[in-house]
Parts: sequence; structure tokens; C-alpha cells
Amino acid sequence: MARTIDLNSDVGESFGRWELVDDAALLQALTSANVACGFHAGDPLALRRVCEVAQGLGVSVGAQVGYRDLAGFGRRYIAYERAELTADVLYQLGALDGIARAAGTRVAYLKPHGALYNTAVHDEEQAGAVVDAVTAYDGRLAVLGLPGSALLAAAERAGLRTVREAFADRGYTAAGTLVPRSEAGALVTDPDEVADRAVRMAVEGTVVAVDGTVVEVGADSLCVHGDTPGAVRTAQAVNARLREAGVELRAFA
Amino acid sequence: MARTIDLNSDVGESFGRWELVDDAALLQALTSANVACGFHAGDPLALRRVCEVAQGLGVSVGAQVGYRDLAGFGRRYIAYERAELTADVLYQLGALDGIARAAGTRVAYLKPHGALYNTAVHDEEQAGAVVDAVTAYDGRLAVLGLPGSALLAAAERAGLRTVREAFADRGYTAAGTLVPRSEAGALVTDPDEVADRAVRMAVEGTVVAVDGTVVEVGADSLCVHGDTPGAVRTAQAVNARLREAGVELRAFA
Amino acid sequence: MARTIDLNSDVGESFGRWELVDDAALLQALTSANVACGFHAGDPLALRRVCEVAQGLGVSVGAQVGYRDLAGFGRRYIAYERAELTADVLYQLGALDGIARAAGTRVAYLKPHGALYNTAVHDEEQAGAVVDAVTAYDGRLAVLGLPGSALLAAAERAGLRTVREAFADRGYTAAGTLVPRSEAGALVTDPDEVADRAVRMAVEGTVVAVDGTVVEVGADSLCVHGDTPGAVRTAQAVNARLREAGVELRAFA
Amino acid sequence: MARTIDLNSDVGESFGRWELVDDAALLQALTSANVACGFHAGDPLALRRVCEVAQGLGVSVGAQVGYRDLAGFGRRYIAYERAELTADVLYQLGALDGIARAAGTRVAYLKPHGALYNTAVHDEEQAGAVVDAVTAYDGRLAVLGLPGSALLAAAERAGLRTVREAFADRGYTAAGTLVPRSEAGALVTDPDEVADRAVRMAVEGTVVAVDGTVVEVGADSLCVHGDTPGAVRTAQAVNARLREAGVELRAFA
Repeated sequence: MARTIDLNSDVGESFGRWELVDDAALLQALTSANVACGFHAGDPLALRRVCEVAQGLGVSVGAQVGYRDLAGFGRRYIAYERAELTADVLYQLGALDGIARAAGTRVAYLKPHGALYNTAVHDEEQAGAVVDAVTAYDGRLAVLGLPGSALLAAAERAGLRTVREAFADRGYTAAGTLVPRSEAGALVTDPDEVADRAVRMAVEGTVVAVDGTVVEVGADSLCVHGDTPGAVRTAQAVNARLREAGVELRAFA
Repeated sequence: MARTIDLNSDVGESFGRWELVDDAALLQALTSANVACGFHAGDPLALRRVCEVAQGLGVSVGAQVGYRDLAGFGRRYIAYERAELTADVLYQLGALDGIARAAGTRVAYLKPHGALYNTAVHDEEQAGAVVDAVTAYDGRLAVLGLPGSALLAAAERAGLRTVREAFADRGYTAAGTLVPRSEAGALVTDPDEVADRAVRMAVEGTVVAVDGTVVEVGADSLCVHGDTPGAVRTAQAVNARLREAGVELRAFA
Repeated sequence: MARTIDLNSDVGESFGRWELVDDAALLQALTSANVACGFHAGDPLALRRVCEVAQGLGVSVGAQVGYRDLAGFGRRYIAYERAELTADVLYQLGALDGIARAAGTRVAYLKPHGALYNTAVHDEEQAGAVVDAVTAYDGRLAVLGLPGSALLAAAERAGLRTVREAFADRGYTAAGTLVPRSEAGALVTDPDEVADRAVRMAVEGTVVAVDGTVVEVGADSLCVHGDTPGAVRTAQAVNARLREAGVELRAFA
Repeated sequence: MARTIDLNSDVGESFGRWELVDDAALLQALTSANVACGFHAGDPLALRRVCEVAQGLGVSVGAQVGYRDLAGFGRRYIAYERAELTADVLYQLGALDGIARAAGTRVAYLKPHGALYNTAVHDEEQAGAVVDAVTAYDGRLAVLGLPGSALLAAAERAGLRTVREAFADRGYTAAGTLVPRSEAGALVTDPDEVADRAVRMAVEGTVVAVDGTVVEVGADSLCVHGDTPGAVRTAQAVNARLREAGVELRAFA
């Protein structure tokens, strides 16, 4: 039986003079691109170029929406009022989608960034605010997030398509949750090891937790981080190994 | 013969805690609203509320795009690279249009703000950059601007619909140009006088210049400024006087 | 025995085109001015003008430091790393002090703004981060804050001078804490009533709580809000009534 | 006779998550560090770390002030009002100096960045605005700039100490001006060639122009760019070669 999975990563996280990664190279290894929308990163010209490359490669474009916090790269929790957060997400969605459409593609899904992603795992208000923006903008958009998160639960209740992701380059606990970044084993940095984990996730639907336990992970998409030094090489390794293992890489949206 | 004209003004030029005008009241006197897009003014929540009110009143929504300059309110010339400016305008267009669509309406036209407006009168590159963004986004959008400007010329060449505006609250020279703000007679502040000028512009297509000469002004839309203390009262006076004079107020888009 | 008290309010909370209050008029009624530092409000030119007026009037200048959040006016909690917050406060302190010195005066104290003020009441880390910035900058600066707050406790431990404030225009509970803004009685808006409360606080050291209880408030400074419509009139009323009651108005720093 | 010269470069041009260069490594090769001040680049925490390293190494700290334009990295001309520009420069000076003093050092000089640097070469108003800020802040600060520029002329008229710089990694015309970046020969990228040119500038006071002419350059300081990929290696090469040639590297301030 042929296995199919999506491979997503963050792109467009440059800002003016500053870059984190070679977006064009990274895009070649992906099926879905979480494109920054300008609030935590992403100047409009860079976003336009990313969308053009994604369109040319047939990579699916997602809106990686974040808090309005360039200085903190969207990694600091901000206590938004619900309506404010919905409006900020809506603004980012429209902005990126306008750029995507000018490039001949469309925003096909939303994935929150950084502290908003983490907050939307458990905070009903912020999760709901994000979902409100998606339904107000276009109910055909999918929402990509952590299985079991408040975000995906709210998206489902709203009738949106939800897509579950697993992290090939993050450590898991025996309970199936991510090892906090402050603890040992939180990050897997060796490209080959990340690729092996990706294959296991895609083929068997499991991951070996930090204590050796084998844990089930139900994922429709695998995420590799795009803002680490070896991001491109890791994504390429994951892409190659998955195809070698007979897994078909295909965008969910 | 029934005369018809559009009445436009700037709205949504608040930012977070700061407001310039009672947008909801101003909107009631207009047929077209130049809504700020977040780069010179306009936080997403305020823009959403403005679009909702505009939709409810049947006021046409335009994207009032500007330079990325909150501190300068978009009133300082910035020497953008052409592709950068196009991307910044495209981003703003998409952002406001996303919010407008969530409110049940659409961005129907574009009008540049402040220093971008002034620059696009004579600068082919910046005028072209703005037009590039409109054609890349949606060729059905109209462009509202100064008759004879590089902007309207570029828009026409690109096959876009162009709409010419005149300023009921600005002084004109005998040559038909605006009196510079640094000179006497640049601004007309009395609401009744502004209303009289508006009627003359709409009915006769003329304005009395600062030296008493009667000058022709061909305008499809009349603009009254939205960021002055008496903006609401002036817009109301213009609206009322035009209707009393038998002029039909109707959005061009 | 002559009573002496300080009267403080927020000024400089404009930004570019936007203003909240007539700073020059408000300054005339104060002995201490909490001047915004550019992160939640306050463009450099406005700050310079405020400092020049304060210097001319002999009003003491304080640094009203806030989170980096113009869109939220510093009213949204942000989960800063401690070292980041210290650096942001230090930057703001230096910036305002440079402007103050160019105006012939000096920053004499620090008072946090908005969500940072509220967080520093109970959060040891953020309170400590603010105090770290003051000691790194100039240990002679005073810290103005809420009696019993983590901020004043940390400042005292660091050997800084602390100054306790009470709010003449806020409701108090029987326990001596402020009535939350979401509850009835949180704000006192009538200028005369605010002035009466100010006199009672200054002369008797008490306030009548929302349930009628008389509560002690030990305050070295009285605060009236500067961002409400009647701010100037309220500050004038408080200033006049205190002097009528024989209270000497004098800056603590 | 022993030759002495200063070697300056830009540091602190990171922002939050984004970095351009290894500031700590670059600082080791310099005698003067043009530290960004937060308007075109430079978050407060990064600036604090840079100042601490500079203090430890005995590297002189200068304020590299720029336009308020993070998205454009201060490289786009902005048409500031004079008083606005003075206030923005004053704010940046104070902010960096506060951080420098907390690190046990002081801002010793000012050098404009990017488009402000280029504009202050010929624009009397903007050059004067920058000088106004320095005199208002501290008349003991030196001003580092291009020989013959409006900036240095204005600084001299104001009684400030001026320091002339030459660019070891930029091409010169036969007239002694810099080859525009859009033309061939504008940049010298080979570290050894840059080092050779630096030695010639320091020892003989000349440079070989793009057409082979030998041109005199009177410079008190040599600049090497800090935001290019090989910036650290180039600065190290220049530093080493100058010392080998018997030139003493010493901060001017």
C-alpha cells in the first residue's frame, strides 16, 4: 500500500536586509510552505518572490500568521483581545493571499507561528480567534496544527478541514508530547536521524520517544524547521529518504 | 440634466489607541471611503470596523495605500526601489481586501496616500510601481487620482479605469493646480465655503482660483479631507448642499 | 503642619500625527511628568517638546517605559525574557534622558506603563528586569509605583529610592486595591469628585472604597490619568483644590 | 615616523532573530565600532552585548544613527523635516549612550548610516539636522564622515571635532569620489586587495582609482564594511597588514 504524506517548513522569514535561510533552495524539498505574513517576519517583496518560486514548483502556500512582534520574531506570548487577534490574523491572511494570487497561486491553509502556535495548543480564546479569522476569510482553507490542540478542535467545530502535523526534528515524550526546548533531547539536529524519524512517522505512524518508548503519532504532514543552519540539508535528506522508502510526497491542500 | 458625482474622504486613519476622526460619522456623508491599509495608519481591528460600517451604508471601499511610515503618517517621501514599492502596495491591497471581503464588501479602487500621492503625480517610477500592483492584484480595480498625474496616465496605459478627483477644501491656482500647503489660500476651512465650492465643481465643473480666475476642473469625484478637526461637519455640509443643488451622490465604483 | 505631595500624570503619549491630550496644558497642572519613551507611544520630536515645556515649568521628568507595542499602546502583556526586558527599558531610559538633557533637564525617575506596570505589581522577573535597568543606568533615579508591588520591593532591595503613588481617579476596594477596570466603580470621571478624593488622600491619607469603607492609602504622589477626554480639566481641578486645602505641591525628585 | 590610523566598521546591525555578522569576532579587528542604534537595525539586547564586548576590548563606541526604516535597513532616502530628524538622531544617541554607559563605556562619536550618510554628503538641511543633535547632546562627541561632505563642514562650523574616513573596500574615481555602487569597480571584495589598499591609504595617503590614477585620500580612519559575507576575514586581514606595515592602529576618540 502506498503511503502519502505532506512535508512542510517555514519560509519567507526574512525581513528587508536580513535572511535566515535560502528560501528558494528550501522550497525545492517541500510540498507545503508556511509563508510568513509580515507580522513576525516577511517583507512584502520577499513574500512575493517566495510565492513565485512556490507557484513554479507546485508547492502549496500556507499563511504562517503570527503576533505583531518583529523584535521578538513572534516568539513571545502577547495577551491579545480576541477581536484584535482575529483582525490581525485576517489582515495577514489577506495580505499574503493577495501576493500569492499575484503570483498565480493561492493561500491554501493557515498555520500559526511561534508563540501563537504554542498558545493555540491550549488557549481556547486565542485558538478561537484564529479560527474566526479563517472562517471570516475563506471557509475552504485548511488549518495545520498539533494533533489534540485547541486550535484543531476549534477548527473542526467550525467545519474547517484540519491537518495534523508531527515534527521529525523534535524529541517526543512517552506521552506523545514534544520535549520542551529547555530540556535535553528537545531537538534532533543530525539530518540523517531526522530523515529516519520522518520515514518511521510516515510509514509506521510512530516515533521513538526520549525514553525509548515507541509512541504513535498520527500525522498528515511532517514539519522540519526552516530557521536552523542546516535547514536546507535536513529538508533535502528527509525528502530523499521518504521517497526512497516508497512514500509519496504530496501537498494536503 | 441630472448631475452625478462621487464624494470621497480618508477613513480608518486611526492606529491602536489613537484616533483622528469619528469614522462612523464621516462614513455617513460619503459615497467612497479611502480606507487606510496599515502602513501609514490603520490597525486591522479599526479597518474591520470601518469596512463593516461602509458595507452597511453601501459606501464604496477604496485602498488608501501609503509608504511604510507610521511615525511620519506616510507624509514623507521615501525613495523606494520600484519592485519594493509594488510589493508593499500589493500587500496593503490584499490585506484590506481580505478585511473588506470578511465584511461582505470588496476593495473597489485604489488611491495613494500622502507623499505617495504627491510623488505619483510626477514620478513615473513610483506611479508605475503602484499601477503594477493594481494590475497584478485585480485589473478591475479603479485608480482614483489627480487629473493629469503620472499615476492616472500610467493606469490608463495599463488599461485600468481611472477616476479624476478635485478637492473642495483646497485652494487652486489660475493654472488649475493646488496651492501649495505652505502658501496662503491653500486650505478652505469654512464648511459652508467648502460646500459652495463643491456645488460649483459638481454643477459647473469650475473653481474660483486664489486670484479670482474661474478655472475648469474635470472631476468624477470630490475629496474632502478626513483628518481635520471639522472633517465630519464639512463632509455633512458638502453632502447636504450637493443634494440640495440637485446633484446625485453616487459611488463611481 | 504643612502637607506636601507630588502630582503625576502621563504625557508625551502622542505618536507622529496622533495626539491624545494637550501635553503643554496638562504639564502646567503637574509636578511630575511620566513621559512616554517611544515604545508604547512618544515620537522623539514630541518627547523633545514635552521635555522643553517640563523644563520651563520646573516639572520633574520621569521615564514612562513600556513594552515594545505601539499597536497595543503597551497595554498587552508580553512574555519577555528578563535580559531582553532590561535592555528594552535601558534603551528607553537612555533615549528619553538624552532628550531631557538636551532640554536642560534630566530623567529623575522611572514609572512603568500599562501592562508592564500591572505585571510588575506581582511578577518578580519583570519587576526585577526593570530594576536591573535602573541600577545599570543610574542608581540615583527613583522608582514610582504601587505600594506593596513587586516593583517597589525589588527597587528597595536594590537600594533605589521608591515613591508610592495613589490614584485619585480610580476606585478602591475595601482591601485597598484598585477596582478592576472591568467592574463598576473602577473609574471616577467627575473632576470635582477626583479633586475631593485627592485632597482626602493628601491630607488624611485615606480613600472611601466602593463599599463605603474608609481605607488608608500611604502615597507620596497622586496620579491622574492623562489619556482621558477631560484629563487637563481634572488635573487642573486636583491641583487647585489641593492648594486651596493648604497642601503644597512639590515634585518628589 | 610612525603612522597611526583608526579602523572602523559597522556592528550591532542585527535585529531580534536576525544577524548579519559575528559582531564579537569583527570587534576584535577594529579600533572604532559604529554601533547601530535601533532605527535601521539593532535591538537593545544586541546593542548591550556589543557595547560590553567593545568595552572589554577597548574598542571605541560610535553611534551609527539612521533613518527610522527597519524594512529598508536605512538605505532609502526619507524626506524628513529638519526638527524631526534632529529629534530622531538625538533619541538614538541617548539610547545607545545609555546602553554604552551601562556597559562601562561611552558613545564617543557619531557616524550616519546608509541613506542618511549619503544624503548628509550634499544636503545642508539633513547634515545640519544631524549636527544639531550632536551639539544638543554633547559637544565633545566627534563626527566621522566623508572628507568634503556637508556633514563635516557643518560639524566644523559648529565647533565639533571632525574625523575623515576612507573606504578600503570601495573603488575610487580619478576625482577622488567613490565609484557608485551601480558601476563596475564599486566594491573590492578580495581581503588581500582590501588590505593592500588600506596600507597604501594609511602609509602614503593615496589610493589607485579605477582608471589607474593615483589619488590622494586624507583619512584619519579607514572603514571596512561589516555587512558582507567575508567582513570578519577582511577586517582581520586589514588589521594584520597595517600592523605588519608598521602602522599603529588607534581609535581617534
